[in-house]
Amino acid sequence: MGIALAPAARVSALRDRTPVVTTLCSHSSLQIFYGARHEGLGTLGIAVGKPPRFYEAFPLARPDRFLSLSKVTDLGRHANTLQREGAVVIPTGSFVEYMGPEAFDALDVPVFGNRKVLAWESDREKERQWLEKAEVPMPRKYRDLSSIDGPVIIKYHGAKGGKGFFLAKSPKELGDFRPTGPYVIQEYVVGTRYYLHFFYSPLSEDGYRVRHGSIELLGMDRRDEANIDELYKLGAQEGLRQAGIRPTFVVTGNVPVILRESLLPQVFDLAARIVDTSVDLFGGMVGPFCVEGIVTEDLQFKVFEISTRIVAGTNLFISGSSYSDFIAPHLSTGRRIALELKRARAEDRLSEVLS
Amino acid sequence: MGIALAPAARVSALRDRTPVVTTLCSHSSLQIFYGARHEGLGTLGIAVGKPPRFYEAFPLARPDRFLSLSKVTDLGRHANTLQREGAVVIPTGSFVEYMGPEAFDALDVPVFGNRKVLAWESDREKERQWLEKAEVPMPRKYRDLSSIDGPVIIKYHGAKGGKGFFLAKSPKELGDFRPTGPYVIQEYVVGTRYYLHFFYSPLSEDGYRVRHGSIELLGMDRRDEANIDELYKLGAQEGLRQAGIRPTFVVTGNVPVILRESLLPQVFDLAARIVDTSVDLFGGMVGPFCVEGIVTEDLQFKVFEISTRIVAGTNLFISGSSYSDFIAPHLSTGRRIALELKRARAEDRLSEVLS
Amino acid sequence: MGIALAPAARVSALRDRTPVVTTLCSHSSLQIFYGARHEGLGTLGIAVGKPPRFYEAFPLARPDRFLSLSKVTDLGRHANTLQREGAVVIPTGSFVEYMGPEAFDALDVPVFGNRKVLAWESDREKERQWLEKAEVPMPRKYRDLSSIDGPVIIKYHGAKGGKGFFLAKSPKELGDFRPTGPYVIQEYVVGTRYYLHFFYSPLSEDGYRVRHGSIELLGMDRRDEANIDELYKLGAQEGLRQAGIRPTFVVTGNVPVILRESLLPQVFDLAARIVDTSVDLFGGMVGPFCVEGIVTEDLQFKVFEISTRIVAGTNLFISGSSYSDFIAPHLSTGRRIALELKRARAEDRLSEVLS
Repeated sequence: MGIALAPAARVSALRDRTPVVTTLCSHSSLQIFYGARHEGLGTLGIAVGKPPRFYEAFPLARPDRFLSLSKVTDLGRHANTLQREGAVVIPTGSFVEYMGPEAFDALDVPVFGNRKVLAWESDREKERQWLEKAEVPMPRKYRDLSSIDGPVIIKYHGAKGGKGFFLAKSPKELGDFRPTGPYVIQEYVVGTRYYLHFFYSPLSEDGYRVRHGSIELLGMDRRDEANIDELYKLGAQEGLRQAGIRPTFVVTGNVPVILRESLLPQVFDLAARIVDTSVDLFGGMVGPFCVEGIVTEDLQFKVFEISTRIVAGTNLFISGSSYSDFIAPHLSTGRRIALELKRARAEDRLSEVLS
Repeated sequence: MGIALAPAARVSALRDRTPVVTTLCSHSSLQIFYGARHEGLGTLGIAVGKPPRFYEAFPLARPDRFLSLSKVTDLGRHANTLQREGAVVIPTGSFVEYMGPEAFDALDVPVFGNRKVLAWESDREKERQWLEKAEVPMPRKYRDLSSIDGPVIIKYHGAKGGKGFFLAKSPKELGDFRPTGPYVIQEYVVGTRYYLHFFYSPLSEDGYRVRHGSIELLGMDRRDEANIDELYKLGAQEGLRQAGIRPTFVVTGNVPVILRESLLPQVFDLAARIVDTSVDLFGGMVGPFCVEGIVTEDLQFKVFEISTRIVAGTNLFISGSSYSDFIAPHLSTGRRIALELKRARAEDRLSEVLS
Repeated sequence: MGIALAPAARVSALRDRTPVVTTLCSHSSLQIFYGARHEGLGTLGIAVGKPPRFYEAFPLARPDRFLSLSKVTDLGRHANTLQREGAVVIPTGSFVEYMGPEAFDALDVPVFGNRKVLAWESDREKERQWLEKAEVPMPRKYRDLSSIDGPVIIKYHGAKGGKGFFLAKSPKELGDFRPTGPYVIQEYVVGTRYYLHFFYSPLSEDGYRVRHGSIELLGMDRRDEANIDELYKLGAQEGLRQAGIRPTFVVTGNVPVILRESLLPQVFDLAARIVDTSVDLFGGMVGPFCVEGIVTEDLQFKVFEISTRIVAGTNLFISGSSYSDFIAPHLSTGRRIALELKRARAEDRLSEVLS
């Protein structure tokens, strides 16, 4: 009845055997394996070189076994074996980045979620179209330097991890800007940042209802970024710039936060429109996703980015959060993935959550 | 034996039937309903217009039913029905603000806590008298602009949500200040902020003893405020001011914190004096309250505000906190309210915790 | 088989009776007593003067009884009694500071962990040698003012709690520096701070293996510091300095954080080398320790300090953390200490974890 994302052939092996939750040994792998074990599923860690030793320290989050590759892109060669063994690949930011979106898309192993989302997330222009179609408030985009009339952040295309971004509080400061490649200019919205961890299930009607299925809110965090977060301790940016120190925005960790309850109607409405639009555009963004935004002093939630898979901020909530505890005890995003897999299998709807 | 706050007639209906925990569908309603359900009490959500849909996402925190009003102030008209059905109203900041303190005070339905506290909290002068009588260290108050000799924050009377506040690090910066209405001038204390979530029970002797009953510490948070919290990322305030960007202090969310253990004697002592003084002044501030202060580099806790009811920072701790876990597992403020109601009913002392 | 730290005579009394976990009534005492009670051990609080009243508020973390002294240094006089009663002293920062490292070292009562670590921690030069031997990346140390070529923090010897530290973003700002005593000059590394709470067990092989035994990661926090943390709200430091307001770094509390999973291999490797080197240098740093560092925009973890015993940031995680939940439910550092004591006793290896 729902939208089939995976061809029947790709998921048929999972009818006969317990799924083996498979992901790269990084990013949010501890949580993913922990959640899968909690639900009685098998687990497999993809390691580049020898398996990382840190799993020794976390006995409840160790995968049952490892597949060691010399490089991540070799994974495709093991597709047949993985299929036979019941592997279901859980995509993470690191996994997709190291493998490359094209190679990931071509992988002939069941992937949790809709792999068509990759094309919409990896291209900033397409992502913006999607969000505009969903009528989501976003920071303004400036066409060129001369049209700037307020604070801006200038990002180079394909810049990794927030290095080389340029901040200006007014057009005056642009005198300092020496472009070194193609860039985009965004309004710098002043406010407080929230990263909202949602889960979209096309199978369940137990959450906040959307056109097909429902969404759940499993937690919230704020990202730590180096060096911007603690830069102020040294002095004002204007002076630091002269000392050759410029702000960077490299994610190093996460802190837990919650949002004013009166903002929940606003953010659920946004998330539902993003999901509904994704169904129209490419068949739906299934599973975990993150809405990343800024709350202004007027209590408007402006979305500056979405991540279309599990993000590392969910690692805070491996035993539940101030939101997921209202759904069920000990409900992490990792465990929620495992529950969705089990339900899809029990209801013979695997092709709606895998691709 | 204790101090009766409610007339016997108002609470008599609660002898015959299970209390129905009733609050406005905002602020900390999820936690309040979740705690009440946990303790087997009924729950009723007051909605303005249609009930908010976000409860769909939180099955364990949904109220049993809703009362939809076209405006909050219509609540008074339903007083008889609510009384008969065993409603106990839990006041929150939003509830009192939307209804207006006078209308809230006049509501002929049992309210959890002492409604006389409203008059002492809503008037900044009276609140200051109360805290001074309790000998609580506070930021200095300046009589006029000419007496300022250090950093200050200037707040307009009745300014909502921290917009239009004026900060000056020294008298020199006051040249920029153009008053647009009556204001108060407070010393700006430099340090780290802590919001301490206490609960005062006139019934229990199991916590930190005060003259009548005892207090408990259920958690701590720090408020997120837009735009002040992340403003520094754009540059120094001095320059931002010239670019037309001024600090605002609108609460958007909360982060969990804990305090140095060596400061606990100091803050329990403060909280106990605030409670004891409240008994003398108006019969006592019953139930949850929040002591909001700044710890200076000399490890002095200076109180800049108290909230005399449940505050939204407690929403972080719906399944317990680094403090309440030392009292009982899964003890949120919402659940603590429900426990107090049940105990008061069992001991026939409802008039001491309701008004 | 392992390294005996305590003479057999000192620990013999513990063979015949349940250990009594004993610590000073401050710092992390609630957690230590709570953990010990959870594991069925006795508890004793050392109070200076009357026992602090805040334990009234935390029934599950109250010690069984108190020993009231007029000053901490009187503890030595009670050594015989404490020995007979099965006391095991848990050192904390406050305990060692108030008693003095020499007196603490001379205490003839079993102490959890290796008291030889005191000499290596209390002397900044020796600590640096230890970390350099372990090949741990640290902020640079400048020999004199004229060699400074970037941002620095200048710390006076023996300065308590971060008062009087001097920050300069470039050599230019040193003109403001008027030394008032002997000092050290450290590179000021810009990035985000993480305080990693480890536990080293010479008995267990269940964690991340080191040469003798294994280490576990039980949590992470970031310290709140007054006034540096919220100083920026008043304006740029350059201007604040002119207004007579200087940054200080006094710890007032803690917030929970997690680290990017991809940094775990790096930090476990660092921690293991610190532990292995400690075995070579002085027989090993047994029990809880904290690696305190900064993650730079290049994702390098630079260690600016280690604490060789339980630190107050662990107080956040009295019921588990986003790391310890992967080991066992409800595993705090306090409880981990109690578990280690019980295991050592059951395996007759007390002299390897006590000194």
